[in-house]
Amino acid sequence: MPGNNNIDTPDDLRNLPVTSLQDLCGELRSFLIDHVATNGGHFSSSLGVVELTVALHYVFNTPEDKLVWDVGHQAYPHKLLTGRKSRFHSNRLLDGISGFPSRDESVYDAFGTGHSSTSISAILGMACTAKYRGDHTRQHIAVIGDGAMTAGMAFEALNNAGYEQPNMLVILNDNNMSIDANTGALQHYLTALTSGKHYNALKSHIRKLLTHPGQPDNWPVEVVRKLQKAIKGGLLRYSNLFEALNIRYFGPVDGHDLKKLIHIFEKLKHIPGPKLLHCVTTKGKGFAPAMTDQAKWHAPKKFDRSTGDTLDAETSVTFQKVFGDTLMELANSNPKIMAITPAMLSGSALTNMKKQMPERVFDVGITEQHAVTFSAGLAADGMIPFCTIYSTFLQRAYDQVIHDVALQKLDVVFCIDRAGVVGQDGPTHHGAFDISFLRCVPNIVGASPMDAEDFRNLLFTAQASEGNGPFAIRYPKGAVASMHGPSGFRKLAIGKGRKIRPGKDIAILSLGPVGQYVKEACDELESDQLHVAHYDLRFFKPLDEALLHEVFSQFSSVITVEDGCIRGGVGSAVLEFMVEHGYHVTLKRLGLPDTFATQGTQQQLHELYGYDKKGIIRVVRQVVGIKTLSVNNVFLSHH
Amino acid sequence: MPGNNNIDTPDDLRNLPVTSLQDLCGELRSFLIDHVATNGGHFSSSLGVVELTVALHYVFNTPEDKLVWDVGHQAYPHKLLTGRKSRFHSNRLLDGISGFPSRDESVYDAFGTGHSSTSISAILGMACTAKYRGDHTRQHIAVIGDGAMTAGMAFEALNNAGYEQPNMLVILNDNNMSIDANTGALQHYLTALTSGKHYNALKSHIRKLLTHPGQPDNWPVEVVRKLQKAIKGGLLRYSNLFEALNIRYFGPVDGHDLKKLIHIFEKLKHIPGPKLLHCVTTKGKGFAPAMTDQAKWHAPKKFDRSTGDTLDAETSVTFQKVFGDTLMELANSNPKIMAITPAMLSGSALTNMKKQMPERVFDVGITEQHAVTFSAGLAADGMIPFCTIYSTFLQRAYDQVIHDVALQKLDVVFCIDRAGVVGQDGPTHHGAFDISFLRCVPNIVGASPMDAEDFRNLLFTAQASEGNGPFAIRYPKGAVASMHGPSGFRKLAIGKGRKIRPGKDIAILSLGPVGQYVKEACDELESDQLHVAHYDLRFFKPLDEALLHEVFSQFSSVITVEDGCIRGGVGSAVLEFMVEHGYHVTLKRLGLPDTFATQGTQQQLHELYGYDKKGIIRVVRQVVGIKTLSVNNVFLSHH
Repeated sequence: MPGNNNIDTPDDLRNLPVTSLQDLCGELRSFLIDHVATNGGHFSSSLGVVELTVALHYVFNTPEDKLVWDVGHQAYPHKLLTGRKSRFHSNRLLDGISGFPSRDESVYDAFGTGHSSTSISAILGMACTAKYRGDHTRQHIAVIGDGAMTAGMAFEALNNAGYEQPNMLVILNDNNMSIDANTGALQHYLTALTSGKHYNALKSHIRKLLTHPGQPDNWPVEVVRKLQKAIKGGLLRYSNLFEALNIRYFGPVDGHDLKKLIHIFEKLKHIPGPKLLHCVTTKGKGFAPAMTDQAKWHAPKKFDRSTGDTLDAETSVTFQKVFGDTLMELANSNPKIMAITPAMLSGSALTNMKKQMPERVFDVGITEQHAVTFSAGLAADGMIPFCTIYSTFLQRAYDQVIHDVALQKLDVVFCIDRAGVVGQDGPTHHGAFDISFLRCVPNIVGASPMDAEDFRNLLFTAQASEGNGPFAIRYPKGAVASMHGPSGFRKLAIGKGRKIRPGKDIAILSLGPVGQYVKEACDELESDQLHVAHYDLRFFKPLDEALLHEVFSQFSSVITVEDGCIRGGVGSAVLEFMVEHGYHVTLKRLGLPDTFATQGTQQQLHELYGYDKKGIIRVVRQVVGIKTLSVNNVFLSHH
Repeated sequence: MPGNNNIDTPDDLRNLPVTSLQDLCGELRSFLIDHVATNGGHFSSSLGVVELTVALHYVFNTPEDKLVWDVGHQAYPHKLLTGRKSRFHSNRLLDGISGFPSRDESVYDAFGTGHSSTSISAILGMACTAKYRGDHTRQHIAVIGDGAMTAGMAFEALNNAGYEQPNMLVILNDNNMSIDANTGALQHYLTALTSGKHYNALKSHIRKLLTHPGQPDNWPVEVVRKLQKAIKGGLLRYSNLFEALNIRYFGPVDGHDLKKLIHIFEKLKHIPGPKLLHCVTTKGKGFAPAMTDQAKWHAPKKFDRSTGDTLDAETSVTFQKVFGDTLMELANSNPKIMAITPAMLSGSALTNMKKQMPERVFDVGITEQHAVTFSAGLAADGMIPFCTIYSTFLQRAYDQVIHDVALQKLDVVFCIDRAGVVGQDGPTHHGAFDISFLRCVPNIVGASPMDAEDFRNLLFTAQASEGNGPFAIRYPKGAVASMHGPSGFRKLAIGKGRKIRPGKDIAILSLGPVGQYVKEACDELESDQLHVAHYDLRFFKPLDEALLHEVFSQFSSVITVEDGCIRGGVGSAVLEFMVEHGYHVTLKRLGLPDTFATQGTQQQLHELYGYDKKGIIRVVRQVVGIKTLSVNNVFLSHH
């Protein structure tokens, strides 16, 4: 930042004259464009809140005043202004700073926010703490997007805030977008507020009634004027969604008008109770291509700053592409198939299907709870909904999976995207827990494909298994091992795995695409005269009992590999089977340890947590080495 | 039902003349009062919807038209009118009919509803299915209470319904109550709508502006009249929370006025799109004591119908009472302690504390997601929130536990009430999964007390362990084993269990109050010359490794006992420890099997699933018998 590159903290910022702030905004924006062009990352949300960020830190006394950024990927300008400019090149990298606010990283990050719609609850907790302590001057601000506002928990928090009445300010950052364009009635409502349609409708309604045929239309001028003022100044207060919840509504205001923002914040500081400021911004503001195609530019890969052309374009086929294409193919022949996504239309590769068969794809907003029970409603009425949710977000709908779907044994297909480590989004977003939290739920079938063909067959099998109850398929972000053989469909036996490779020294049981690592490891070990058997479990529930009996009766050492937490994961399921059937073999489980996995590329994380090719080879040698050293060891004495 | 006891189905009902319906309502009410007086059960909600139920089945063509009752305990009259009168004596009993709607039980139960706030999502799924099929005549009705409306997922569904615009009717059953009196801004808003306050506020606002000093106050009469009409007839449309979400709002209407209800339903049938009818009812209607003390009469035990006196009053001390008393005691000496409940103030025994220290007890409404993140906000600001949620409802806040609390290692104490089987509420409400779904989450401490003293010490320890991160304590509904020794507090070592009884033939590891069964079983087995060691694990995370090393190095057979699902439960945790440390013993896990547990008393269910005293004795004899029969068995060969 050429002009103000000594601005490193909010204190520096507050020493600037107001007249310099607009320049600072330009510099921040330029820095961000440079950075993301070179490194990729979340982009457009941050470009949209530059003025807002500068104004907030200028007016409010952070970090004493508490500031929470909802879905923290809009917090890049905040990070630049709070001491992290010099480390920003490490954003989202292994050992680098987080792409989201993080309490561990900075005292200015009052609350960690990766998932959406948590900010109002968190700031309300802090505001109530201040109230309890008798502190009436500290300020509490949450910045939340209109997309995030569709999630029920934001409404829950507003409802509670309207009741508790502590001192807090919710800034509704209204840019019409989640990652894709927002849907839902709330969006229309906010647009109506912004465009003045609501106000105009009120006005014309009164006018119509007053000038009804047969009534005098020669109203005194001052009556009409007063009436309009009444509507504008007062009636809207009563006619506002937020006011109905006892939250004072202000705005809409242009979120790029720095002077106005500063002026309003100064005023709002002195108004007690819960307030909402409706702030209209443009996602991608200041970078023309991002303003034109907002979904594409939500979190781009590296690009050419002058042309906007993406560099390093994805060349390999992804699980997401296979999913989108296959589901559309299946839907073409099965009229019962529906697709449901909670605001991840493009992320889940459903954009094409939405274009082709709009009445069969439901983007229900950032509403995982509703998405699942809505799917249950479709299934209860004979449809086969493919409810597509990222693993980490399915945590939001756990009760609905149990209570509304599994208990009623409804045919909902859960397509669990971003299962396993997701890479640079880091600990807030890894799909680490789904095997553990689904495996204990009765009636659920759970699977994970090792390659594209397997994935297609699982999707086919799910829709061809009516009456069997919920069917969950977990798959990771990114590249999928390429297709083998013809591209038709084969119905798979539920709960049946397959032997990939025979062996005699040790057996490896893998679930999902990490099986590819196992294949490579087995190849390499073979050249070392270690004959490793490899089985693809394919299903984590129910387990393939015949396969497991084969394995446990033939091998004294077994390794399981999964891309998920090992506490309660599929390795534990295998373990449960083992003791339930009285086998006693040496069993080693590979997967994520009992800590929150860090950020980095998926490959880096697989390596770090020891279940990439190298890690698997290492453990095989270890286990077999132990065996070699201890043939008389009690553990193995029954062989 | 003397007058209309041949009314068994909606078809019968529809053959009655309208004039008989009021009598039928009286008879239904009388039947319900008799039934609950004799058997206990959910009560007041059902009394409040008698007229609504009769009118709905009279007007709508159930079961072709779809009818979903939110939080199904208001569905008793519905059950009586849909073929289940003769089996109603078995309501909530083992092998009897369910206390909630159930798809397995009746074609009239379009969707199973035990947990709150699912009905709009479910009915929207069905309404969208009809729309997709081109069926524009089928009707879709959800009946939802004002309490249930505070949950975010109801809002998520409304937002989606306002966008999709299918043909559906939401009946807002506004009785001012959840189990306790409702809190939250929405409640005030609905009251304002009902009482006309909203309308009056609008009116007076206009009047004030128009008669501002210096302005003519001699307005033409017809102007004022017209203006009032405008406000009443039109403006309210724009000033309504539901209309803002593009749902047409009708009402409020008296929910006990049968004729009016029938008339309105007939009209609403012909209005397309999503509609909401605001229906005002009295919880407990028709039984004076229940109308006076609504919280007490939500789900009473047996009572004397003429006096309203409760029979079989609870005499034993409960976990709930110990919790409420202890938390207040701790809060008196630790000013950081706060209590949070999502609408379970009396159920969680927080009523007294709310009276004593209202500013430290937050009833946040039926909003588990918000409750947890609000607690996280309190903790992030230095408080120690005791977030009290029933195990089955904590499923609603799983993501918030992971993402907002555990990841940030915040000091939230989760008081997990109703853990294990809950009894007659049955499969929708059992706290079966919490150990499995929490055990895989890093940073969480998880415990369960065996008796009252232990419980008090765990609560004490939780608040005395600042900086240690989230601390979960699970405990069941009902009686607690009485206190031993003095009533002070002792800080327990986190992750440390205790040896209850030495032994040599076999070891039993128990978690929580089922340890009492183990004690009794050990006593009985002792007289049979079987010396069983008993260990209370106390913590399911972290495990007591020293204790486990002791057990696995001394015993060749181990049994674990827990009141929760065995898939991934504490038994599996012990199993993981066992293989991770190379032990090979015979391990048998007792707990809930991989099916949804049925309804019945807690004692009946413990027996049914084999972990009451008798079940434990049986398994000990089995395992020891096997051992006796097979001393050379490979399983045990290393001992």
